[in-house]
Amino acid sequence: MTGAVASGRLAVVGLGPGPHELLAPLAATELAAAAEVFGYGPYVDRVPERPGQRRIASDNREELDRAQAALARAAEGVHVAMVSGGDPGVFAMAAAVCEAVEQGPAAWRALDIAVIPGVTAMLAVAARIGAPLGHDFCAISLSDNLKPWAVIERRLVAAIGAGFVVALYNPASRARPHQLDAALDVGRAHLPAETPVIFGRAAFRPDERITTVPLREARGAMADMATLVLIGSPATRVVERPGLPPLVYSPRSAEPLA
Amino acid sequence: MTGAVASGRLAVVGLGPGPHELLAPLAATELAAAAEVFGYGPYVDRVPERPGQRRIASDNREELDRAQAALARAAEGVHVAMVSGGDPGVFAMAAAVCEAVEQGPAAWRALDIAVIPGVTAMLAVAARIGAPLGHDFCAISLSDNLKPWAVIERRLVAAIGAGFVVALYNPASRARPHQLDAALDVGRAHLPAETPVIFGRAAFRPDERITTVPLREARGAMADMATLVLIGSPATRVVERPGLPPLVYSPRSAEPLA
Repeated sequence: MTGAVASGRLAVVGLGPGPHELLAPLAATELAAAAEVFGYGPYVDRVPERPGQRRIASDNREELDRAQAALARAAEGVHVAMVSGGDPGVFAMAAAVCEAVEQGPAAWRALDIAVIPGVTAMLAVAARIGAPLGHDFCAISLSDNLKPWAVIERRLVAAIGAGFVVALYNPASRARPHQLDAALDVGRAHLPAETPVIFGRAAFRPDERITTVPLREARGAMADMATLVLIGSPATRVVERPGLPPLVYSPRSAEPLA
Repeated sequence: MTGAVASGRLAVVGLGPGPHELLAPLAATELAAAAEVFGYGPYVDRVPERPGQRRIASDNREELDRAQAALARAAEGVHVAMVSGGDPGVFAMAAAVCEAVEQGPAAWRALDIAVIPGVTAMLAVAARIGAPLGHDFCAISLSDNLKPWAVIERRLVAAIGAGFVVALYNPASRARPHQLDAALDVGRAHLPAETPVIFGRAAFRPDERITTVPLREARGAMADMATLVLIGSPATRVVERPGLPPLVYSPRSAEPLA
C-alpha cells in the first residue's frame, strides 16, 4: 500500500492482546516513529510514552471522527499512528480509516497509509485453551450499533447450522445486555447441549480469565465488553487433564472422532 | 495451559507471515529456548539456527505423526518447539497436537503445552490491501484431505449467502486444481459480478503479490497452495487511488454505503 505519496504517513497499528511480548517489532517501530498517536483511550495508554509525542485519546464510539482527525494530520505532513487492540482489521480502526478516505478529500487518497497486523482476540484466546479454531470458523461482532440484529441473527444461524466454530466479538455492553443470551439461544436451537463454549478475557495478561462451559450452562452474564466468546461446533472436543486446564480443540477433520 | 507439569515442554509456535519484524518476541523466546524444533520443512527453515539445537523437518501431510513425535520427545523431558506459519491455531499444528494428546498415552496430558499465537495469513493479506475483513467474516480451508467437498460447499453457500466475507486457506494444490474454481462458482451464484476477490501471496515478504479482481474475472489458476484468497461481501468496496494500489475494505455497517 505504500509508494509515491504525500509527506505524511498514517500507520494503523495492531497492539495484539496486550503484553509487550506479543507486540510485533514492526508495530513497535511504527509507534516509536509516530509524532502523534490516536486511538481509544485504553489502547493509547498501552503505548510506551515518548518525549515530544502527542497522544490523542478518544471515546470508543467515535471511530469515524477519530479516523478523519488522524487523516487530516497525516495530510498536513505529520507521521501519525492509529492504534487498535488486537488486529486493526478485525472490528477495529482499519475499516474506519478506509471509509474516511473514501468519503474524504481527494488528497487523502495520495497519503501513505499502512496497516500493521496484530494477534486478534480470538487467536489469543484460542491459543490459551488449545485449538478451538482448528477447523473452519467465523467471526461475528454482536454489536448492533452498525447493523440490525436481524442480520446478526441470520449470520449466527447460517454459521452454526453449517458447522462453523463461531467467535463472538463485542458480546455485551451496558446498553445491550441481552444480545449474548439471544446468540447463545440460537446456538442451543442448533447444537448439542454439551457443545463447549469458551469465555476468554485478557488472554496472556496477568488478569487473564478463560472459562469453558457446556452450551447448556452458558449465560450472557458470563461476558462483558472485553470478553471474547467462542461457540464450538459439534466436532469440538474437550480433553480433560488432571491438575491442568482442559485442552479444547476442533479437529482438522470435519466429523467428530470415534 | 501451564501449571504443575512433567519436566518437558512443547511450545506450538506461530511464525506469522514471514519477516522477523512480524514475529512476536514471545515466539522468538520460545524458539531460542527449544532444544529441538519440529515442523514442516519450509517453516523450520525460517527458524534462526542455533548451535546444539536439533531440527526435525517433515512433509506437510504428516501432521499427526509430527505431533506425536514432538510429544514423545517432550515426555522424555526435552524442551520442544513445533512451528507453524501464521498462527498455529488456524489450519495448522495446534489442533494436531491436541488430537495427538487425546489419542496418546495418559502421561501426555500432564505435559507443559503452550500455544504461541501469530498473525495468520488472512490478517496479513488484509492489512496489505486495506480492511477487507472489516465486518463479519469466515475462514474456510478448501483442502478436502480431511473433510468431504460436500461439507466445504455447504459452508461456502451458508457463509456467502449470509453476507460474510470469506477467507479461503489451502485454495489449490497439484492434487486438486479445480476446487478453487468450484468455490468461485459458488460465489458467482450468490454475489454481484463486481464483488472484489483478493489473491494474496507472501504478504510482507519481498516477493509479495496481492491482486484484486472482480469476481467475474477470478480464476482458480490465479492461486497456488501458498495463496490466501478473500472473497468480499456485497458490501465490500474498492477505493481507487491514483498511482497507488486500491484500498479494499468491508465497512463496519452491514449495508453498502450510498
